[in-house]
Amino acid sequence: MADFELMRALAQSAKTKIILLVMDGVGGLPVAPGGPTELEAAQKPNLNRLAAEGCLGQMHPVGYGITPGSGPGHLSLFGYDPLRFDIGRGVLEAFGIGVAVGPEDVAARGNFCTVDSDGRITDRRAGRIPTEASSKLVEKLAAIKIPGVEMEVRPVKEHRFVVVMRGPGLSACLTDTDPQKTGVAPLPVKVTDPKGEKTAKSFNEWIAQAGKILSNDHPANMLTLRGFSGDPRLPQFTDIFKLHPACVAVYPMYRGVAELVGMQEIPFAGDTPEDEFRAAVKVWKDFDFFFIHIKATDSRGEDGDFKAKVKVIETVDAALPTLLAAKPDVLLVTGDHSTPAKLKSHSWHPVPLLLWAPGTVRPDTETVFGERMCARGGLGTFPTPELMPLALAHAGRLAKYGA
Amino acid sequence: MADFELMRALAQSAKTKIILLVMDGVGGLPVAPGGPTELEAAQKPNLNRLAAEGCLGQMHPVGYGITPGSGPGHLSLFGYDPLRFDIGRGVLEAFGIGVAVGPEDVAARGNFCTVDSDGRITDRRAGRIPTEASSKLVEKLAAIKIPGVEMEVRPVKEHRFVVVMRGPGLSACLTDTDPQKTGVAPLPVKVTDPKGEKTAKSFNEWIAQAGKILSNDHPANMLTLRGFSGDPRLPQFTDIFKLHPACVAVYPMYRGVAELVGMQEIPFAGDTPEDEFRAAVKVWKDFDFFFIHIKATDSRGEDGDFKAKVKVIETVDAALPTLLAAKPDVLLVTGDHSTPAKLKSHSWHPVPLLLWAPGTVRPDTETVFGERMCARGGLGTFPTPELMPLALAHAGRLAKYGA
Repeated sequence: MADFELMRALAQSAKTKIILLVMDGVGGLPVAPGGPTELEAAQKPNLNRLAAEGCLGQMHPVGYGITPGSGPGHLSLFGYDPLRFDIGRGVLEAFGIGVAVGPEDVAARGNFCTVDSDGRITDRRAGRIPTEASSKLVEKLAAIKIPGVEMEVRPVKEHRFVVVMRGPGLSACLTDTDPQKTGVAPLPVKVTDPKGEKTAKSFNEWIAQAGKILSNDHPANMLTLRGFSGDPRLPQFTDIFKLHPACVAVYPMYRGVAELVGMQEIPFAGDTPEDEFRAAVKVWKDFDFFFIHIKATDSRGEDGDFKAKVKVIETVDAALPTLLAAKPDVLLVTGDHSTPAKLKSHSWHPVPLLLWAPGTVRPDTETVFGERMCARGGLGTFPTPELMPLALAHAGRLAKYGA
Repeated sequence: MADFELMRALAQSAKTKIILLVMDGVGGLPVAPGGPTELEAAQKPNLNRLAAEGCLGQMHPVGYGITPGSGPGHLSLFGYDPLRFDIGRGVLEAFGIGVAVGPEDVAARGNFCTVDSDGRITDRRAGRIPTEASSKLVEKLAAIKIPGVEMEVRPVKEHRFVVVMRGPGLSACLTDTDPQKTGVAPLPVKVTDPKGEKTAKSFNEWIAQAGKILSNDHPANMLTLRGFSGDPRLPQFTDIFKLHPACVAVYPMYRGVAELVGMQEIPFAGDTPEDEFRAAVKVWKDFDFFFIHIKATDSRGEDGDFKAKVKVIETVDAALPTLLAAKPDVLLVTGDHSTPAKLKSHSWHPVPLLLWAPGTVRPDTETVFGERMCARGGLGTFPTPELMPLALAHAGRLAKYGA
């Protein structure tokens, strides 16, 4: 990973500006043997020009063979070793629906489930009840009062919900109630550290009341909680890299992760790449690092829709002149992981990277932005957390190490 | 290295099957400037087809510039950091001649040597006496009885032999008796930990009796022992990777190393690649990981016989359809180290790798299996212990890391 002590020692202020353009899940696979990947298939004259002028490479977000979730994938891009820094499941789910998790709060991911007359789980997902049904149940749960704390419950999708506990002296040192199997009752919340006692007691009280409220709502007549987590108190981006970072993202989860490292969210109207690029350009003077997140590449990959993913990449390419007009000193175009349409899911394949920095980049022999080209690009294959030092260097923001 | 904690957390069962085909010492060098390496010179239509469909790379078994022995080379392929996990010299030598070293045993590598009338070593290898001569001396040594333990002594080659001590309460925390120079007497066995006291005493008794027995057998009138070692108690392959591994190997040493990580030996008749492949296919249903070891590539490399090494590779290629007919999900073809015929020895050069996994591999632009092609292959250059996570990922056997 980026060596934070080294970064703190060498990072220096400058007038240069860096853009980290993340096409979520951009890495792909050919559908037919010998065919192109999504990125290779896309008509993208602007990105290809940047590839010819710049340098390519490929990155492993977590490690060889490891498929990253969105949290680890982004922490890695921001320079944080995702095996060392962990955003809990509860916090990430809360971010995903725009629920804040403050420094003192504890969030958990919840599932509605079905239990039999003896309280044993018969369906861990309550028959995947529709979101409308779980929204009504969540409204009922919102009525529960626990002394000394405040509770926020919010539906996510189908049987999933998020619960956040707020109050003084809380701790997320708690174990899941989801036993991860049927035939047994949900587990009580237990502590992994004595400082969690009060929080465990409050959650257990809340669960007991919830169980009574839900008892007649078969198949969603009970619930489980997991991924208890609070603010991971990450070292702050500005402190490590001496950058003032802005985040432009359509989806709440990515804004949430960016906020955890100290990026400032830029509100904007619309949801196209062009809208996002305009939003970044609009605040160009106020920041020197711009994290811009494109979600649709990942969504179309998860759908298994190769052509639609290609189209998203082409839309990004078409909007690129808006971003380039602001004259960034360093432009990084990459992803947080691969999401090949062929696999319909995140994957472990390395992530293609384009580094463009007029005047300071050493060009390689590649002239097209694609996975096969990135695999033999001048930057080689390296761990994603090393991207930040590379970006700083190309922006003239890292002092020499040693005399 | 493969992060064992991470592997334990993410590895999941599946119906997929992985083959690790190791051509020992396969990496080579051109004999004439601009000429092909052994692998590049070989006519190998099957391997080249797999290279075109799959992805190439090159690996460092121990580190940049480090020439691996057979023990470290194989541990590395199995996912173990060879700098952290060590199979002692005594154990490895015992494996090499098919002598078992149980969990309670201590093995040492022995050398016959020449001492003068004052007991000082004048030749550390006793004039490299022929194997027939040392075999007779070993027979004499077999007569030595030490109270409370059992001794097994076996000739290896020329002046080399192996001795294994068996009994309760033994420890390998012992120092070598070989002073690594002439003009001084062999050292007594000393302990590096008090728990080795009994073992040291027994070995010193055995050495004293051996010295008397050998006194008239000039030039082999004394012996030295080194590399005292027992079962290294390695973490088990099945526990780490959730795989049921089989080992198909002609030579005892490789079966021994495989056994240490928990692989099951598959007995078979014959010694050709075709024989080995048939043996693997025969037990196809019972295992999901097949380590197949081809020794002759290394032997011909050590001989300095470029053409014969090429021929071995061609024989492997010709037999490959037998293996492919079993329809593996992942096939890895590589070596444990390089043994260029030009150097007649193991070398530090990175080891070529072919990863073939229909449906999940991301192809690169290379279409021929050779060192130059592997150096620019899509998998890049990486440490050998990362191969196991890559294999598991391509076999659908690793869960996503983080949400």
